[in-house]
Amino acid sequence: MKSKLVECIPNFSEGRRPEVVEAIVQAIKATPCVLLLDYSSDVDHNRSVVTFAGEPVFVAEAAFAAIKVASQLIDLNQHTGTHPRLGATDVVPFVPLDNVTLDECVQLANELGKRVGDELNIPVYLYEAAATRPEHVRLENVRRGEFEWLKENIGTDPDRVPDYGPTSVGRAGATIIGARNPLVAFNVYLTTDDVALARRIARQIRASSGGFPHVKALGMLVDGKAQVSMNFTNPAETPLLPVIETIRQEAARSKVEIHHSELIGLIPQTVLFDVASQYLQLDNFHVEQVLEYRLHQVAQQKSILE
Amino acid sequence: MKSKLVECIPNFSEGRRPEVVEAIVQAIKATPCVLLLDYSSDVDHNRSVVTFAGEPVFVAEAAFAAIKVASQLIDLNQHTGTHPRLGATDVVPFVPLDNVTLDECVQLANELGKRVGDELNIPVYLYEAAATRPEHVRLENVRRGEFEWLKENIGTDPDRVPDYGPTSVGRAGATIIGARNPLVAFNVYLTTDDVALARRIARQIRASSGGFPHVKALGMLVDGKAQVSMNFTNPAETPLLPVIETIRQEAARSKVEIHHSELIGLIPQTVLFDVASQYLQLDNFHVEQVLEYRLHQVAQQKSILE
Repeated sequence: MKSKLVECIPNFSEGRRPEVVEAIVQAIKATPCVLLLDYSSDVDHNRSVVTFAGEPVFVAEAAFAAIKVASQLIDLNQHTGTHPRLGATDVVPFVPLDNVTLDECVQLANELGKRVGDELNIPVYLYEAAATRPEHVRLENVRRGEFEWLKENIGTDPDRVPDYGPTSVGRAGATIIGARNPLVAFNVYLTTDDVALARRIARQIRASSGGFPHVKALGMLVDGKAQVSMNFTNPAETPLLPVIETIRQEAARSKVEIHHSELIGLIPQTVLFDVASQYLQLDNFHVEQVLEYRLHQVAQQKSILE
Repeated sequence: MKSKLVECIPNFSEGRRPEVVEAIVQAIKATPCVLLLDYSSDVDHNRSVVTFAGEPVFVAEAAFAAIKVASQLIDLNQHTGTHPRLGATDVVPFVPLDNVTLDECVQLANELGKRVGDELNIPVYLYEAAATRPEHVRLENVRRGEFEWLKENIGTDPDRVPDYGPTSVGRAGATIIGARNPLVAFNVYLTTDDVALARRIARQIRASSGGFPHVKALGMLVDGKAQVSMNFTNPAETPLLPVIETIRQEAARSKVEIHHSELIGLIPQTVLFDVASQYLQLDNFHVEQVLEYRLHQVAQQKSILE
């Protein structure tokens, strides 16, 4: 039987007290059969992001343990930071990696949501692929008004009846749990500080203004350079290369070039294979031509047979 | 302890009798702990290439088993084909993949060479990193004159005294065994049938005429298109992207473009990661940002600790 692999990237409303972040990370590390891949904190946002992966049941167990610790150590009434948030554990996406469907991740979100509601007495909203209402698909909608607003209005606004847990908000706030496909967060810096150009390019490439499907983009000024900040929410459908080429061409019309780019967090290997094979114009490229992929595949087939 | 991984890519002088190729492949498959990755035959060349990998000791065992079968089923006196060859098993390179040095592959080549000489009574020449004489580093030199010449002259030419085995050639011919780094075989097709242009570009990019280090290149006509056929013998030192850009620019000077490209055999994933990160101009890219790499790394660390 092929082993199932799910990724989980919970966001916690604590980025200033390292001991609290460590306690949360410890809860994940202490769960058997879970692989901690990455974690980082942002002081301005007062927020931390943890990435881990493993078999679905263990990943859900680790997420529950982390949410429990966060609810004990973080009081949203005391929390300030520039990033919008609803709870101590703010958002918990499950992402299918190997031999798992998005639907199975939706089920995992439901199981975890029920447990968080029942056992920790925290209101839970389901979002993205797990959303039970169309207006809850987008995270921004669920988080509107933030903790302070929700605390006052959860009992009266019918749009804010939680999917699981109580219709009342304690010091841990509410938690948003869901399922989505892997996402690539990717920023391009231009050789200019003309943020209007970055915004114009962002409008041109993003899905919401008629650009590439599955691309979100914003223009901003970062480190004195105009930056096009992007999320690729379905890189299999909309790969990076044609979008980069469009940015390059649009910038060139203003005599501007791409200065460099950066990747935020982890990137699935197939996204990079696609960039390389498209740049190289490889005919009939298939991932079995990648030595390590092929090795892994054959090793797995062999262990299934034996 | 981290597991050691070696790749072996033996070439056999049989590409027309599938039952012989199957018998050779079976000998490799039957060796425990060896992963058969790929094999293919060429009728014109009358030659087959098999790729497999595993722990060094098992890989050497599988190579020996295959050489033995080939020596029983292939008679070089009956062999015709367009590809130069010295023996039933013509050439056997060992390539370090994980946690193995090139020196360890040299030792493996020596151990296998001694066994093939002693037990199968086949003369063995060591080449590339395993060569014992500078003039044996290049495969072309060792293979000069081919089987027919060697059969007559092995006893008299001091340059052809084998490293292992008898100074006489039987029906299995001689076998060339060695160690080298991973190699990328990559061909670019141009939008022209002007083979002179492909040859001019090949001369410009290849190391032997003062181009990029670790690049071999030839211009030829394939399927009606001018083709630049390349080997990258050290893609960590000379990555693909700047070479492709040079081909693109040189072709453009003659109003020609790259039509498409093709990969022969398997490619190490880092070579594709390099192409992608260089194309994207990624700042501070490191392979730990690739999800699957990071997963594998953490899983391995965990299994070492536990």
